[in-house]
Amino acid sequence: MNQHLFDRAIALDTVAPGRYAGRTDPAWANMVGPFGGVTAATALQAILRHADCLGEPTALTVNFCAALAEGDFEVEAQAVRTNRSTQHWAVSIEQGGGTVLTATALTATRRDTWGAQEVRMPQVLSPAGLGKPPMAAPVEWVKRYDLRFAEGPIPRVWDGEGDNSRTTVCVRDEPPRPLEFASLTALCDVFYPRVWRRRATRVPAGTVSMTVYFHANGAELAAVGEGWLIGQAEASGFRNGFFDQRAQLWAQSGALLATTHQLVYYKE
Amino acid sequence: MNQHLFDRAIALDTVAPGRYAGRTDPAWANMVGPFGGVTAATALQAILRHADCLGEPTALTVNFCAALAEGDFEVEAQAVRTNRSTQHWAVSIEQGGGTVLTATALTATRRDTWGAQEVRMPQVLSPAGLGKPPMAAPVEWVKRYDLRFAEGPIPRVWDGEGDNSRTTVCVRDEPPRPLEFASLTALCDVFYPRVWRRRATRVPAGTVSMTVYFHANGAELAAVGEGWLIGQAEASGFRNGFFDQRAQLWAQSGALLATTHQLVYYKE
Repeated sequence: MNQHLFDRAIALDTVAPGRYAGRTDPAWANMVGPFGGVTAATALQAILRHADCLGEPTALTVNFCAALAEGDFEVEAQAVRTNRSTQHWAVSIEQGGGTVLTATALTATRRDTWGAQEVRMPQVLSPAGLGKPPMAAPVEWVKRYDLRFAEGPIPRVWDGEGDNSRTTVCVRDEPPRPLEFASLTALCDVFYPRVWRRRATRVPAGTVSMTVYFHANGAELAAVGEGWLIGQAEASGFRNGFFDQRAQLWAQSGALLATTHQLVYYKE
Repeated sequence: MNQHLFDRAIALDTVAPGRYAGRTDPAWANMVGPFGGVTAATALQAILRHADCLGEPTALTVNFCAALAEGDFEVEAQAVRTNRSTQHWAVSIEQGGGTVLTATALTATRRDTWGAQEVRMPQVLSPAGLGKPPMAAPVEWVKRYDLRFAEGPIPRVWDGEGDNSRTTVCVRDEPPRPLEFASLTALCDVFYPRVWRRRATRVPAGTVSMTVYFHANGAELAAVGEGWLIGQAEASGFRNGFFDQRAQLWAQSGALLATTHQLVYYKE
């Protein structure tokens, strides 16, 4: 069986304990450098592969310090503090002698507790009913996902006529791949820049910081398997070159899997 | 004139470039250790005071690795990457030979661009109309704020009868103090744990990670001055010992100043 392109993209070779060698993958190219979701997933992967890793990811913040160039990079993951049931991580990606990504993460052993979910999954048509977008993928990485827009697809006409920033989508890896923490991290970044949606104007934009909170544990993600996720993304405000983007991802069962936030740079 | 208690709490002495000595302040005590908002503000303050700091804060993530003990601590702030108009920071707080906080931040020179605000400020009564809560502050730091609840005050009766997690509040420093980035960071953490609101049950809970996106620049914060802010906080989901908490803070003019998110540990 061929290796899934997502596994190829996040593959790391261990150089020393906590140090890994990776490389960008042309199958995941964005306009400049690789898809940020895969870079974020690679940072998380360095923790997941670490021999000292305690429990499962609960929070991850990645900061995109500079665009990755095509080619090799090095990842360093360090357990900064290990408590009884939680562990704090610092991760960085270096390329060409400079830092291109910094990240922090929390892993934890999760226990059964009282629980409740407040954000309901939006009601959407089935993926078959929604159908594929009637346009070619604008960049390579978009071909790695099956995206079925229920609301707010990438504008086909850039006429400046947008009036809100919301997108609702059914999404899964293309081809399907069993869900786990690294792929869920990348899926948190599939929402194109909200400024394009809001303005129906294509301005330069790039994520500078992204946070993921994992609401589900590994067993729950495994149970989703190759199933579809429902995602919804929206901005709060656009001002002076930066906007935020908040999103939720649910399993088709309605269970909230992740909430995620970004700060995005834009021009003009 | 006496020093404001917030200034006293975030005061740092420079030990070396990027290294500072600080100390906890009993006026900001929480149940265990100091109020996390002040600790987060202290981490940001280490960046703001750094001679190399470029521009103004746009994103900050702090991770609470362990409770601070009463007493001295050391803060280290390092500019990891400096670009033309953005700069990435790594910050840590050490106490007793261990890391108690890690943080990353982005500062940036902000420019005039197209802008829009999507989240509207909730309509609430005036602070005078809302009045002060009819209960004593449960911990010391709460006395450092003037909190006027429009919705979702701290439950007075812990009867397990909560049905949602939303709190809407008018808030400012007590006594009033001109708003800037450090105090806005602390104000992002004034919302008590959403699990208490949702359950009307007081379970152990503590923030493990907190992110702030600054939508306003320094001049806009200065224009707010000692004015009231309107804040709203809500959870998305509670599961297996962790829940998220998202909040927005507006100036009374309706301008969005910050959006913020936390992941919070809880028991039972």
